[in-house]
Amino acid sequence: MPGRACLAIDLGTTSCKAVVLSESLAPLGWGEARLTTNCPSPRACEQDPEEWWGAIVRASGEALSKSGGSPIEVVSLSSQREGAVLLDEEGKPVRPAIVWMDRRASAEAKEMVSDFGEEWLSRVVGLVPSPGFTAPILRWLKREEPEALSKARHVTQPKGYLILRLTGRRAIDLDLGPRFGLFDLQNRSYREELLEWAGVCESLLPELVEPTEVVGGLAEEAARSLGLKAGTPVVAGMGDRQCEVLGLGLLPGREVMVATGTATNVSTLTEAIPLSLHPRVAKSPHLRGLFQLEAGIWASGAVLMWLFEQFGPGARGRGRGEVARWLSEEFERGEHAGSLVVLPFFAGASAPHWEPEMSAAILGLGLGHTRADLVRAVVESLAVEIAENVSLYKGLMPGIERVVHCGGGAMIEPFNKSICDACGLEVEIPRHLDSAALGAACLGLSLMLERDPFDLAREANPRWRRLKPSPEGVERLKARREAQRRAHKALRNLLRGLGR
Amino acid sequence: MPGRACLAIDLGTTSCKAVVLSESLAPLGWGEARLTTNCPSPRACEQDPEEWWGAIVRASGEALSKSGGSPIEVVSLSSQREGAVLLDEEGKPVRPAIVWMDRRASAEAKEMVSDFGEEWLSRVVGLVPSPGFTAPILRWLKREEPEALSKARHVTQPKGYLILRLTGRRAIDLDLGPRFGLFDLQNRSYREELLEWAGVCESLLPELVEPTEVVGGLAEEAARSLGLKAGTPVVAGMGDRQCEVLGLGLLPGREVMVATGTATNVSTLTEAIPLSLHPRVAKSPHLRGLFQLEAGIWASGAVLMWLFEQFGPGARGRGRGEVARWLSEEFERGEHAGSLVVLPFFAGASAPHWEPEMSAAILGLGLGHTRADLVRAVVESLAVEIAENVSLYKGLMPGIERVVHCGGGAMIEPFNKSICDACGLEVEIPRHLDSAALGAACLGLSLMLERDPFDLAREANPRWRRLKPSPEGVERLKARREAQRRAHKALRNLLRGLGR
Repeated sequence: MPGRACLAIDLGTTSCKAVVLSESLAPLGWGEARLTTNCPSPRACEQDPEEWWGAIVRASGEALSKSGGSPIEVVSLSSQREGAVLLDEEGKPVRPAIVWMDRRASAEAKEMVSDFGEEWLSRVVGLVPSPGFTAPILRWLKREEPEALSKARHVTQPKGYLILRLTGRRAIDLDLGPRFGLFDLQNRSYREELLEWAGVCESLLPELVEPTEVVGGLAEEAARSLGLKAGTPVVAGMGDRQCEVLGLGLLPGREVMVATGTATNVSTLTEAIPLSLHPRVAKSPHLRGLFQLEAGIWASGAVLMWLFEQFGPGARGRGRGEVARWLSEEFERGEHAGSLVVLPFFAGASAPHWEPEMSAAILGLGLGHTRADLVRAVVESLAVEIAENVSLYKGLMPGIERVVHCGGGAMIEPFNKSICDACGLEVEIPRHLDSAALGAACLGLSLMLERDPFDLAREANPRWRRLKPSPEGVERLKARREAQRRAHKALRNLLRGLGR
Repeated sequence: MPGRACLAIDLGTTSCKAVVLSESLAPLGWGEARLTTNCPSPRACEQDPEEWWGAIVRASGEALSKSGGSPIEVVSLSSQREGAVLLDEEGKPVRPAIVWMDRRASAEAKEMVSDFGEEWLSRVVGLVPSPGFTAPILRWLKREEPEALSKARHVTQPKGYLILRLTGRRAIDLDLGPRFGLFDLQNRSYREELLEWAGVCESLLPELVEPTEVVGGLAEEAARSLGLKAGTPVVAGMGDRQCEVLGLGLLPGREVMVATGTATNVSTLTEAIPLSLHPRVAKSPHLRGLFQLEAGIWASGAVLMWLFEQFGPGARGRGRGEVARWLSEEFERGEHAGSLVVLPFFAGASAPHWEPEMSAAILGLGLGHTRADLVRAVVESLAVEIAENVSLYKGLMPGIERVVHCGGGAMIEPFNKSICDACGLEVEIPRHLDSAALGAACLGLSLMLERDPFDLAREANPRWRRLKPSPEGVERLKARREAQRRAHKALRNLLRGLGR
């Protein structure tokens, strides 16, 4: 007889994933359904909440059908963050959801920084909102689509929509609070002057709950669509990056997560926010009173995919296994990469530089260099940028001893090794590279089993490989890091004007 | 009955070419035979004069067999330049020939500049010798292989070997004088202090003759090998770059030759050397009292071939037609190349920069760029460097109205167009892109027919296409040129230290 289980749903940006995790911590079934992103204008990124729901049903259905009929005793949630979902009184969208990648509110994001100051935002909100955060989007809507805003009776993030659709409750988990850009991190509540600035009343916004809170029972209609029992408890869960950190069982103050998908997120957990942390490092509440600190680079996997698509064996859309294999093979052949310097700012220079208008450069080329040298130099340069991010924490948190690399990028072994050498830290690779849904599932199970969710995650997703820095590698990457810093300094002004 | 004809032999570096040109200026037959370059050490480039002779016989045999039995009334010569060929009393090599690409005498070339001064060398010799020139090689031999030098009874260039082998005479054409690095351009004779510096007596060197001089009749043995009549007059001819200029029928003071093979040679003919010409521009005597001025970039075709080999459809060694087609197609697709800046110094920054230690850079890259953008930006950046070379003449010689682009690079139509727009001058493409052998043949025929060799060349190798600069293109390439200059200035010190 099958044991009890948790269904976790992770509403991502490119797809919705679902996993059924048994009480014995075996993933019984996985499911995935693709999502469409619409770009009505070049800087716009929108998705249809109705399509979300369809994908949630399909992905959950797939995971459940593979899971052998284990009774689902709890549902737990993870999702993409930020953006803005505008709903009417019945919970129907009044316009398509604006997702986090949307750049239409760039001017408003800048305004927000100049109106409140970077330091104030960092201290009070916990982060400096970018254009895809809810507050600047609301201000943009007020200017560009006042009728849509006036029709809205509820303004939330994708996670809030998920909770509403499953339980009928207008709630969202606290860890996502900062991502509204309307939230006070210390007081754990919306902040009046921010609401005023964005032009919304608190009544439009969801109630903030603990990630571990059961927000309600599965509503009749949702239960029917998912094929589950109505009333099944639904746990709020967290944002996908928070769930990802949890799904690795990351050790607070001791480990840094490096998660490489299209971008690389560099997160760590801490009991107290270090005082001299850079104001641009985002802070959000996590479980057990911990804070998640987040930095990262905007394009890493995207750059590697770019190499594959532009210079690879010629076919687009191959699986990530094939991309990883090609990159690894090229890397190994790149004997003369050492004389190339790459500034891998293909989508701007992100943390720790915060220069969105920067472009990329490849320096030192000669006729003796090969495509393989180029690939290797790019991979190593990305590892160096990741190390610069890890340094944001390492300098302030002396307990950090390890990097955990996850996401599709961790399939590229020389990339793992380069990160290891660039950081001068051990790198561990978890068994499951995509840990967001797994993290949500562990949070659900933790309620069911009354166990610590981090402990559950460490059992469900053990580290299956460990790399140690090699002295030669550390030396080589140190030289690359210095060359990269020198080149960045010399080229800063020049590169800002290019690539647009 | 077939008309009379000239056999021209062009002893190049990668192959020996031959052409039979009839008195009615029809190329009756072409022949080609590959040559091997040996590299006993990384900086050494040697060839075997006996292999030269075999290739000469094969290439000539092929051309003659295709020519339908036209009686050869004159033989004319073109060949690679510089280097050093050491022969004993019987004209046998005492060691392999050191060819112009050899870099072992780098220290000696530098010594020569510091001993005599760049300005003096430029004024007296006509150029500043590089490591592959005869004088620094002789000094290097004196230090490294004194026994070889002491065995030598005759020291010459490849052209001198060709004349000796064909006629038994120790002579060489005057246009090659400067390429010994031992020659006085104004007095048209070897110069005592240079001979002393190199450690050779004048008696070791060939007699200098006019390019139009019949150096002798075809010797018995040579005639037998070539299947020609003994005693057939042999005209000295010129170096390959001089013959190339002649083979285009280049108009002195009005046209600039841009010849793109592995490198690009940028030459023009003038009646008087402009006083403020850069001292690094090489000067040599040409026909009719003219001087040939030479600058150029060290790697252009080589860079385009590099693009093809590293990023192209995957096969090495394809024909240049296929390479040209791929580059042209990529170029046309490169819509967003405008935001990329390339410093195409893949083999150092040649004229007008003269920075051999420079390396290449690609700046401004973003995820929206494609391989095609890269190709286009590289092609345009090379065109800009060529324009910088053309400017060396244009500023001083107001009569210059046109560029003639020849060599394999001229098969790449967007490259022609880019050169046209970058120079802001008309570009003409000759019917025969490889004009060195043709130039030598016209020189031979000019004696036979008592006609001007330039007139013959203009008939034998008419311009078959003319491109005019377009205002948009000129504007675009002007912006690229400015960006390239700015980037070069900003990156000069950084790039010098890389790429080695």
